[in-house]
Amino acid sequence: MSSGSGIAIALDAMGSDLGPPATLAGACEVSQHPESPRLFVVGDADVLRRELEKHPHDRDKIRIVHASEVIAQDEKPKEAITSKPGASILVAAELVKAGEAQVLVSAGNTGAVTMCCARTFTRLQGVTRSALGAVYPTERRRGEKDDPFSLILDAGLTLEASAEDLVGFAVMGAAYSKCISKNSRPRVGLLSVGGEESKGTESVVKAHAVLKRLGARSDGGFEFIGNIEGMDIPRGTADVVVTSGFTGNIVLKMLEGISETVMRLARSASEKSLQYKAGLLLLAPAIQRLRQVTDWQEYGGVPILGFDRLCIKAHGRSTARAIRNAIRVAHRAARTDTVGSIQKGLEAARSAE
Amino acid sequence: MSSGSGIAIALDAMGSDLGPPATLAGACEVSQHPESPRLFVVGDADVLRRELEKHPHDRDKIRIVHASEVIAQDEKPKEAITSKPGASILVAAELVKAGEAQVLVSAGNTGAVTMCCARTFTRLQGVTRSALGAVYPTERRRGEKDDPFSLILDAGLTLEASAEDLVGFAVMGAAYSKCISKNSRPRVGLLSVGGEESKGTESVVKAHAVLKRLGARSDGGFEFIGNIEGMDIPRGTADVVVTSGFTGNIVLKMLEGISETVMRLARSASEKSLQYKAGLLLLAPAIQRLRQVTDWQEYGGVPILGFDRLCIKAHGRSTARAIRNAIRVAHRAARTDTVGSIQKGLEAARSAE
Repeated sequence: MSSGSGIAIALDAMGSDLGPPATLAGACEVSQHPESPRLFVVGDADVLRRELEKHPHDRDKIRIVHASEVIAQDEKPKEAITSKPGASILVAAELVKAGEAQVLVSAGNTGAVTMCCARTFTRLQGVTRSALGAVYPTERRRGEKDDPFSLILDAGLTLEASAEDLVGFAVMGAAYSKCISKNSRPRVGLLSVGGEESKGTESVVKAHAVLKRLGARSDGGFEFIGNIEGMDIPRGTADVVVTSGFTGNIVLKMLEGISETVMRLARSASEKSLQYKAGLLLLAPAIQRLRQVTDWQEYGGVPILGFDRLCIKAHGRSTARAIRNAIRVAHRAARTDTVGSIQKGLEAARSAE
Repeated sequence: MSSGSGIAIALDAMGSDLGPPATLAGACEVSQHPESPRLFVVGDADVLRRELEKHPHDRDKIRIVHASEVIAQDEKPKEAITSKPGASILVAAELVKAGEAQVLVSAGNTGAVTMCCARTFTRLQGVTRSALGAVYPTERRRGEKDDPFSLILDAGLTLEASAEDLVGFAVMGAAYSKCISKNSRPRVGLLSVGGEESKGTESVVKAHAVLKRLGARSDGGFEFIGNIEGMDIPRGTADVVVTSGFTGNIVLKMLEGISETVMRLARSASEKSLQYKAGLLLLAPAIQRLRQVTDWQEYGGVPILGFDRLCIKAHGRSTARAIRNAIRVAHRAARTDTVGSIQKGLEAARSAE
């Protein structure tokens, strides 16, 4: 299991806004690592072949698979998937369904990618709704790699979540976190408006009761730390933050917005005064470090959870580095059998009901 | 109307964690301003009289009203209100109900204060659910005072909001913003997961349609800027952010948490390295200014909206300065007839249906 030789990743090479050049550059770089997985690179074969020749790569590891069509970032997912059966994302997903590859990676249109997963893959038993996990930087460090990221889900697939949906998100998120962050007993927190178990909407209160039972079981696979509140998000109190897609999406975009606001304020302070400019220069290494830590390109991609196959969705603006990191995450997920681990978690949840 | 002589404020003097000393210090300071309102200061008369003598004040402006009981911050609201009919918050609310005072100000237990409003005051026609507004600092400046605050509601009273509830929040928030920030046509944004009007939960999509019609009317009293997303919150794209109490509460606590996290990171950087310490020293004036702008004590209190009487809820940890600012906000709300303005907005909303 430690060698990647048996594992293959299907990479939608047309998805990123930066197009095949960025995706191929990332793929070629990964292929040179001795333990890297095999890669099916899916897209316009002529274009991909040309890009491939531009970068040193391991020929045994990369195989181009032709796809005649592309779904653009701004297309309506449903119409696009129906009208473009030859789209690169669909062809790549079919490779995963057929077992030729174990994980799907795409930087394409989020709606189209998730819809493609729902059409091509099979929903796991016990999953009421699939979820998009997202990682975000926190104050606290954890796990094997001392990494400061927490996972929050759902990030926007299931806007209104029932108690059952929330329990499913908790189980899937914990299993993913365990496999990817090598965190043997992730702390799961349920996002609410107060710490007491009576606080929150009806579905949050119901989910709390189930998660409390489940977290106490040895086969539950996680520690349930109860309700967490808004201030716990940046603190990193929980490894896995469970919430509906509506709130999750708003929280994530707000984190993004705040980083931008802080950077703009710093820039404007620096332009206004030499003293501030000097102060910011002295702080540059710390700011640089903070930027690295909060850089989404470092974590590369986020999982679409709930199916018998895993998909890592990379950011739409993925550069070669982001693609490389998304492939690494996908590889780790395959090596650690994330889907199997999710299934086990779901079984434990069913027997706890 | 411009002189405050006709206006009186009922101040629950027992509410703040810092107790009567902080509340009385704030009240005494306000009373010395020639245009300040009259103040009914409600609580244990002996204690209040002693505190009153410690500070210079205008004797004609302050009247002590005795209340034999106090509801603590950690008491269960319902039980406390039922078992303590002589509580300072209830006595103060009765003064407002009777028309002796125009606005209620309290730094007490939020649950007890809102429940007390619901029991003592009358819900305005057209209001399906009351709301707690909260102000938060943004990047953008606006209005007469060039103030960088936006209003978000509901902040936690109505966890799950129907389309009607959301429309009511928009109307009440716009009227409040217009009166308090002297912003003649506030920009109202509906918090969602995408800009298109089809994005969001069912109640958000329905509320969007109504607000679009209402915002287009000359008597609607606000500009509807459509859906806004998480990143628009710190940017200050909207003067009034409309959302359910669940999401609103999480957003507000997250903003608080992020400020704390940034301050902790700065402190720890400063302790680690002399270079960082020097950098932060050079930036101190900017940080100080940022702190002032983000200081909740500056805006003093937040409104409880939806009743025929207004209540300004001050922070539980209110100092004399916060109490002073809460009284000022209450005074301005009375002078500008905020409740009348909310009623007009609700009428316009009804005729737009």
